[in-house]
Amino acid sequence: MTIAVDAMGGDNAPSDIVKGALKAAKQLRATSVLLVGDQKVIERLLPRRFVPRNIDIVHCSDAIRMDEHPGPSLRRRDQASMVVAARLVNNGKAQAMVSAGNTGALHQIALLEIGRLKGVRRPALAALLPTEKQPAMALDLGANADCKPEYLVQFAYMGSTYANRVLGVKDPRVGLLNIGTEVGKGNTLVIQSRELLAAAPGLNFIGNIEPTGFFQGQADVVVCDGFVGNMMLKTAEAVSEFIMKRMRQAATSNTRAKVGGALLRPSLRSLKQDMSHTDHGGAMLLGLKGIVIKCHGRADWEAISNGVRVAEQALDREVLARIAECLNPTGVQV
Amino acid sequence: MTIAVDAMGGDNAPSDIVKGALKAAKQLRATSVLLVGDQKVIERLLPRRFVPRNIDIVHCSDAIRMDEHPGPSLRRRDQASMVVAARLVNNGKAQAMVSAGNTGALHQIALLEIGRLKGVRRPALAALLPTEKQPAMALDLGANADCKPEYLVQFAYMGSTYANRVLGVKDPRVGLLNIGTEVGKGNTLVIQSRELLAAAPGLNFIGNIEPTGFFQGQADVVVCDGFVGNMMLKTAEAVSEFIMKRMRQAATSNTRAKVGGALLRPSLRSLKQDMSHTDHGGAMLLGLKGIVIKCHGRADWEAISNGVRVAEQALDREVLARIAECLNPTGVQV
Repeated sequence: MTIAVDAMGGDNAPSDIVKGALKAAKQLRATSVLLVGDQKVIERLLPRRFVPRNIDIVHCSDAIRMDEHPGPSLRRRDQASMVVAARLVNNGKAQAMVSAGNTGALHQIALLEIGRLKGVRRPALAALLPTEKQPAMALDLGANADCKPEYLVQFAYMGSTYANRVLGVKDPRVGLLNIGTEVGKGNTLVIQSRELLAAAPGLNFIGNIEPTGFFQGQADVVVCDGFVGNMMLKTAEAVSEFIMKRMRQAATSNTRAKVGGALLRPSLRSLKQDMSHTDHGGAMLLGLKGIVIKCHGRADWEAISNGVRVAEQALDREVLARIAECLNPTGVQV
Repeated sequence: MTIAVDAMGGDNAPSDIVKGALKAAKQLRATSVLLVGDQKVIERLLPRRFVPRNIDIVHCSDAIRMDEHPGPSLRRRDQASMVVAARLVNNGKAQAMVSAGNTGALHQIALLEIGRLKGVRRPALAALLPTEKQPAMALDLGANADCKPEYLVQFAYMGSTYANRVLGVKDPRVGLLNIGTEVGKGNTLVIQSRELLAAAPGLNFIGNIEPTGFFQGQADVVVCDGFVGNMMLKTAEAVSEFIMKRMRQAATSNTRAKVGGALLRPSLRSLKQDMSHTDHGGAMLLGLKGIVIKCHGRADWEAISNGVRVAEQALDREVLARIAECLNPTGVQV
């Protein structure tokens, strides 16, 4: 198995990308890691001696900036690290790619260069989010701002397959993200999707689920359109930032609070970790003919290393073949 | 001015409702408060002597339960406290109503019994949410799950008018809630709404705003469709609950943390207050021919008392007349 890593994408590229990929390569000895980017720059970041055998460089001279507007012109950027990495997947030289670069560009390039699995209407951006119990998967988190009910049903199959194969969840509980739990609640898209989901064979559909239920861990997978999913994600980030800021203010407001904050800090570390993206290995674009992992733009080397490991797991557990089976059997044509 | 209070709606009805209304009546001597509900029950909750002169009871024998599904049959519930309160506004015996009851029912009853202001396409549920700076208004928070771009423009006028008249914000900054700040980001509704908002006269439209920007206080008003707004609200509640729960766990995990938590607690009180609904006086349905304040279902007496005060302010500052002016002048027909 070979995983292509976009060495030039992300706020901390290339240094953290190279460091994270190196770390992962050392752990995953049976997997080859291709660092895609400027050879000279990457070489300087690798250790002088003892580079793991399973790491290699694919040189290219261009990179897509974080603030570039994704447009059709991206495809002509033959030398951009993200495009080169996607083409490695396309022509079979790699089976997965990992990038912390521009999300919009990655979505577009992956769609064009790698292409959809047969039967998939729209690939979806999926990620594991922390809950009071185990992390749960949410999709779509932003790949498709406008969706049809049929897309949400496919998201449900893809998410359920991933949760089952990679996370080892038996018969994953799939919920429909909504503003109320009762039947008939929500907007037209959600009401129509609910009917289709309830009738879809082979899904453990548990009905509507509100954000509270999701963060309490009531579902293993929730589906939603990409606008709503991204809004939930961004609101969760904004609110945790808001609360953390206020806590820091409170913990420095007077001597008593300062002492309290200092004593409490070690116990809060795991919460902080959950709220950060480092440990969840980023998001993935599900529904393409290759595994595509999107790490957070601010990903550090640990997050990148996690991203590579997640890609390896998804390949190892044959997620794509199982998704294809779900969406293309006789009878479950959606 | 007269404000009708639905004494029978809400998880803590009728005791907290009566107590809160009583408190408000004592403060707002020029305003009459009508307690709508079961006379005998309410009388038992009032002090034996010295009931303020500006408080009165309007008896009715029925009440809409919190879990009742809002349907057309609600209108025939002549004796339900929520319906009676709305009719008091309709026939001019009150100018505002306050309820902590069933949100869906309130929306439907208010729409049918009180009716829309001339020119208003859809009333919107609006509320003040805490930000890093001053509280900011968001609407629609759930009255209309499916919206057209024109509705969002009206929400912008209504929110801007309220922020200006009641909150005293000069030239309120109005943002469009979105998953990105760039032009062209978002779903079809948002992209079309942005164009209309940018062209709408008399609005200080500042463009797209993400949840982070909203909670940082970058806008005085944000508009969105009711599904997205309610999703933001519910996500914010879910995430703060999640974080607070984890903090409590952390603060009891060992002796060191327990001491730290105890020392820090007083300084965290204002954060907790901001996160709770008590101080923000609930949400309001804007765009109707009367002021309709919706307190949280879990509202305690303080929240109810705040709700009555907010209604009084809105009446005092003639918010409805100003909204009508905005939406019905020559030239700003939307």
